Amino acid sequence: MTLLDPASRSARGLATEAEATGRTAHEPTTLFEESWRDFVFAEVWTRPGLPRRARFLVAMASAAICGLEDRQLDDFVRGALTSNELSLAELREAALHLAVYSGWGNGGRLDRAVTRVAAELGLPPADVPPIRSEPWDPEERIQQGHDEFAKVMTFPPGPPATPYLLGINNFVFGEMWRRRGLDEPSRRWITLVGVCESGADIPIKSHIHAAMASGNCKPDEMLEFCLQYGTHAGWPKASRMQMVVLEMIRKVQEGLPWHG
Amino acid sequence: MTLLDPASRSARGLATEAEATGRTAHEPTTLFEESWRDFVFAEVWTRPGLPRRARFLVAMASAAICGLEDRQLDDFVRGALTSNELSLAELREAALHLAVYSGWGNGGRLDRAVTRVAAELGLPPADVPPIRSEPWDPEERIQQGHDEFAKVMTFPPGPPATPYLLGINNFVFGEMWRRRGLDEPSRRWITLVGVCESGADIPIKSHIHAAMASGNCKPDEMLEFCLQYGTHAGWPKASRMQMVVLEMIRKVQEGLPWHG
Amino acid sequence: MTLLDPASRSARGLATEAEATGRTAHEPTTLFEESWRDFVFAEVWTRPGLPRRARFLVAMASAAICGLEDRQLDDFVRGALTSNELSLAELREAALHLAVYSGWGNGGRLDRAVTRVAAELGLPPADVPPIRSEPWDPEERIQQGHDEFAKVMTFPPGPPATPYLLGINNFVFGEMWRRRGLDEPSRRWITLVGVCESGADIPIKSHIHAAMASGNCKPDEMLEFCLQYGTHAGWPKASRMQMVVLEMIRKVQEGLPWHG
Repeated sequence: MTLLDPASRSARGLATEAEATGRTAHEPTTLFEESWRDFVFAEVWTRPGLPRRARFLVAMASAAICGLEDRQLDDFVRGALTSNELSLAELREAALHLAVYSGWGNGGRLDRAVTRVAAELGLPPADVPPIRSEPWDPEERIQQGHDEFAKVMTFPPGPPATPYLLGINNFVFGEMWRRRGLDEPSRRWITLVGVCESGADIPIKSHIHAAMASGNCKPDEMLEFCLQYGTHAGWPKASRMQMVVLEMIRKVQEGLPWHG
Repeated sequence: MTLLDPASRSARGLATEAEATGRTAHEPTTLFEESWRDFVFAEVWTRPGLPRRARFLVAMASAAICGLEDRQLDDFVRGALTSNELSLAELREAALHLAVYSGWGNGGRLDRAVTRVAAELGLPPADVPPIRSEPWDPEERIQQGHDEFAKVMTFPPGPPATPYLLGINNFVFGEMWRRRGLDEPSRRWITLVGVCESGADIPIKSHIHAAMASGNCKPDEMLEFCLQYGTHAGWPKASRMQMVVLEMIRKVQEGLPWHG
Repeated sequence: MTLLDPASRSARGLATEAEATGRTAHEPTTLFEESWRDFVFAEVWTRPGLPRRARFLVAMASAAICGLEDRQLDDFVRGALTSNELSLAELREAALHLAVYSGWGNGGRLDRAVTRVAAELGLPPADVPPIRSEPWDPEERIQQGHDEFAKVMTFPPGPPATPYLLGINNFVFGEMWRRRGLDEPSRRWITLVGVCESGADIPIKSHIHAAMASGNCKPDEMLEFCLQYGTHAGWPKASRMQMVVLEMIRKVQEGLPWHG
């Protein structure tokens, strides 16, 4: 039997915190801060099973939604940039993606954090293509949105018969998901945080299924995601997530649709 | 086939942003800000189907719940006041209404924004009647709450047999909904944002049904609301909303109750 | 018939606000502030049926989750300390507990409020034991988490077969719930606010059931909690809570499990 010791756990936590925040980690002065070091950083962020890049995306999306103080959101942005897990251009795409899945208010919080940290680090502006630079045919945009939806969700959408569905078709899939500046797996982790936070049954089920059915996210990564997400959003929200992840792992393995 | 062009879309977005915020709109410097101009303001706020007044109420309620920075909530309050879509007295009522449907913390955020913007614009204090100015009979208050509930929800309440139900009866319906300083349709939009954000099935269904069964909100307005709400709260929350709106449009048309 | 009069209600509200915030209460200048005095403080906080200590825990947990301004969260912390309803050491435990049930971001908000108010009041640092001071056997920690879960939830957990469940076992029950610096009933109120806010069905049902089945919380206290919670989170969220409370009161009385 090997005993684990508190000093090693704390040292590992401080080292991981420094990596995750891109700054010197502080010795805790309260019980809460101790748990941040000894559980969240020492025991969660150090686990295998989910790439560090994904952990940063989950952390940033959750922190923006949770309305944390600027400096805390800045910490994760700085950590992602200084560890080269995400580029400035990718973070700009991430802020837009978060806006779609949790509202423009939360997306703006992340975007402004990226602006603050880019200034702090003296980074030059990112080269990010505009949403549209050429005139477009509205019919073609609708068709592009339809095709992108089918690819991302792994099933075709119904007709855009309501204002909400037209917005999904035109902008969410017809413009945003088609952008190439952020890879699909990264977009999935932001999407998953957004749908979890909504607590809405159909988006939760369909997006968890699609994340795996598309091949973007592996079952073990999804299970590891539930733990990482739990530290940001609390165990009750992560509990709902894990129930659906377990259900959808089975359905994807059996080739069933999310509502099957 | 008519092509649409990016420059026209952007110009329309900037003009709409100026109206919605009561200040000069800024040229975007990031992708996120570009989407705010080219999608949210150019393509959503300009749509017919939902009065601008309703869009302001949805925007303010959502921004308060989302915990946005003061200046962003202030923008919508300023826009509503300078475009004469809502008066200062109506905004005071709106803050109280929001407190009931999303908690006093969020109501206070809106109330303080109203105070800040009123000072900025040099407005005199609004003439708002107190909650009670005369002595009252507790039994009569219970009866008044009962009657107001029946009118607003379009079905009679059960007996106020628990502390929570007594609070609903006494204050929510017996005092707040009976106030005449804000019209019923306006109260509906705030209520709908509050119930959506809660994710609670029964309030969502019963209030969406009552908004239409009362004649306060039309089916097409409700569908347009889902898109506007989606920009503030994200597509997953708006998805849940739209599912129930479609279900309740049918029920109201067939004369069925919400739980029918 | 006894008439109630507005002046008495307002005076009672101001006196209660002073107790709840540990500072002089201000005369309201807006309708919203009037409702805070005349309904929330005069008619809710003064009710019997839920100890003042529990109301403070609900208020602080809700205010942290709601992302209120620092000074508002500070108010409840100051009120709890100056009225001796909660000690500084208990508040440190409460912040950690809140982190687990609503995410480390929200827990940190409460912890920093406690730090600010402790400095304001000139309190010496609390004597709070560390999470671990001695080396530990990982197998023994898993067993301890298992046993603590069974005691707190009143039913045994399944095996810790996923990262999320391992985190629940190791830290949530294996370390946090086993701490003796905050009593179980107090932990229940924080837990209940966390699960309510999540909107997640299984945590809501299982924790409401366990709060009563354990003997920690009485049915009448749970019903009173729904009203107090409603003022912080809005009536829709409290509505969901009360539905489940009523269901679980019956199940606990009949000796049935939460999912029975």
